[in-house]
Amino acid sequence: MIQPAHGGNLVWAARLVGCSPSAILDFSASISPLGPPHSILTAIKSQLANIKNYPDPSYSELRLALSHFHKLHPDWILPGNGSAELLTLLGREFAELTGTILITPAFGDYYRTLKSYNANFQEICLFEENEKVKSKSRRGKGEKDIYLISTPMGQQAKLPHSINTHTCGLLINNPHNPTGGLFMRETIIPCLEKFSLVVIDEAFMNFLCPEEEQSLISWVHKYPNLVILRSLTKFYSLPGLRLGYAITNPQRLKRWGLWRDPWPVNTLAEVAGIKAIQDIHFQEKTWAWLKPTKWELFQGLEGIDGLQPLPSTTNFLLVKSQFSVAKLQFQLLQQHQILIRDCLSFPQLGDHFFRVAVRTSGDNNYLLSALRQIMHTL
Amino acid sequence: MIQPAHGGNLVWAARLVGCSPSAILDFSASISPLGPPHSILTAIKSQLANIKNYPDPSYSELRLALSHFHKLHPDWILPGNGSAELLTLLGREFAELTGTILITPAFGDYYRTLKSYNANFQEICLFEENEKVKSKSRRGKGEKDIYLISTPMGQQAKLPHSINTHTCGLLINNPHNPTGGLFMRETIIPCLEKFSLVVIDEAFMNFLCPEEEQSLISWVHKYPNLVILRSLTKFYSLPGLRLGYAITNPQRLKRWGLWRDPWPVNTLAEVAGIKAIQDIHFQEKTWAWLKPTKWELFQGLEGIDGLQPLPSTTNFLLVKSQFSVAKLQFQLLQQHQILIRDCLSFPQLGDHFFRVAVRTSGDNNYLLSALRQIMHTL
Repeated sequence: MIQPAHGGNLVWAARLVGCSPSAILDFSASISPLGPPHSILTAIKSQLANIKNYPDPSYSELRLALSHFHKLHPDWILPGNGSAELLTLLGREFAELTGTILITPAFGDYYRTLKSYNANFQEICLFEENEKVKSKSRRGKGEKDIYLISTPMGQQAKLPHSINTHTCGLLINNPHNPTGGLFMRETIIPCLEKFSLVVIDEAFMNFLCPEEEQSLISWVHKYPNLVILRSLTKFYSLPGLRLGYAITNPQRLKRWGLWRDPWPVNTLAEVAGIKAIQDIHFQEKTWAWLKPTKWELFQGLEGIDGLQPLPSTTNFLLVKSQFSVAKLQFQLLQQHQILIRDCLSFPQLGDHFFRVAVRTSGDNNYLLSALRQIMHTL
Repeated sequence: MIQPAHGGNLVWAARLVGCSPSAILDFSASISPLGPPHSILTAIKSQLANIKNYPDPSYSELRLALSHFHKLHPDWILPGNGSAELLTLLGREFAELTGTILITPAFGDYYRTLKSYNANFQEICLFEENEKVKSKSRRGKGEKDIYLISTPMGQQAKLPHSINTHTCGLLINNPHNPTGGLFMRETIIPCLEKFSLVVIDEAFMNFLCPEEEQSLISWVHKYPNLVILRSLTKFYSLPGLRLGYAITNPQRLKRWGLWRDPWPVNTLAEVAGIKAIQDIHFQEKTWAWLKPTKWELFQGLEGIDGLQPLPSTTNFLLVKSQFSVAKLQFQLLQQHQILIRDCLSFPQLGDHFFRVAVRTSGDNNYLLSALRQIMHTL
């Protein structure tokens, strides 16, 4: 069977070891284990009779709820069938530019969307040790690569000197997937002056509490070349329902409206989104849970010989492994019905990294004990 | 407020007259009043916990259920986020051709999808009295337009002599929306030999019982240039859930996979689709209901001075009105909270046609009595 390019493919994993998809403990998709909140499930049940009507094509109620939450006019917000649908629309925008800079390792779907419209792109890697960029750029004597962006954890990307950024796009994931690193606002803002289009995928930003988050949403008014993508499916545990949104200037959103079908978001996702954004209690509960639980999982992983987790600002951890992750993944699945995310789809990482979501303490301890058992036999 | 381009926009209608969207009796969207069937609602409720997982990106269970229903291999079937999403992908295919023939009056979303990728298209009208085609085609002396396609009810379209069909696409709605006319298989098959790509939108075909339907699904094996679009939302009353599918050769579907996001169909739509296709009882109940109820509504409309319904093979009726439909629509909405579909978005029809869905006898009689009352005052 073909190896899936994304986490959360339970049907694939279940077939591989001959069990039911529901029997698998999924650490591969970075979804909160706390949701979906009751407020959402209740709202969906109460709206079930409403599936016999078309969704409101303007999604005015959802846009209004999001506009209150983010304190900006509803015209600046466009809901999508998961942020993946909006990313696809962005592929078409990137294809109009001379090129796009992709900070790598990058979420596999970024390649898909860039390729789907034959957009030119160049990868620049966050890891110092990776020399690919330097060897690729055609640099004259004495010319130096320019520092582009970095995380406080020391991951940094340098921009080849030859690139004319003013005709180029930039696609960043913040917090960065799969490393969990965070780009501070002040490191991104200079990019807004340099690039023709800057897309910041903030799919995991809501896992950071308000004092720590580094969203650039309030910069959209100043920078018409800035697009923010947000997801509601990870924080509220709704990936099956498909819901994300884009925040950017209304002119751009109107243009996208001409490229897509009239009812991309289903009625139940719309009502779920409205309830989600209003559920302050669930948001606070998530922030209170994540920090200590992530720290406990981090320490547990660090304590296992051959494994080294990277510090992460969000709800997953990237882990370096001395041993082949393909083998480790299969044994975890076969012996413990645990699915972790291998990193084969990230060429910069390969077979010696894996990613795990932070789940409940109980689940995390089960993972740690399974890992200890297997690592011992490798 | 901007007039919506589609039926079923209850939010727009409700705002116009200051009531709740749920208070409106909707004849504007051609959705069955019998659904959603209990089998679907029960299945959705039982799968609600599963929204915390990503959908299976291969949608293997839904494709298998559809493959049993249509007796063809699952590789020939692609589920979509409503057939509207699949139509959008087709816009990209049409844009690669020299042009596309659009049989008009045509569903507004066809224009949207053709324009979204800047596809060239030419409209040819089903109504004999419409002379637009003749005046548009550059015809030499003695050259005649070629008969292209017709319905048993005498609607027919002629193809301008100048068109080289072998580099062209053809987009047909069968049964035809908004007239309700049906193209017989034998009139479409010659088009499959002539055109580079033939898309048949069979969104309303399932309303015809098996002895009467004219689907070309089983022709996909013979004609790689044939694409069938099907919808599950109209027959099973699920437009809010978004579910349609395309049937065509696997090579074409693989290509579309590169153009779209990995999880376009939500988990609840997938389970609803599986249950829908297996609910033989609901299908038979629908066919048994539609014929006499439509006939009753047809006769009722015919009995009102100034209105003339057209015979229809499916679940809606196009009605010619002596009076302005814009006025009629507003009065029905204001005085009776009934929404009918005006035909302003069909330039060939304009203000003297409207479309109504066939609803339950009770609803239909309420519409007839409201129409009698209003027509009397016009």
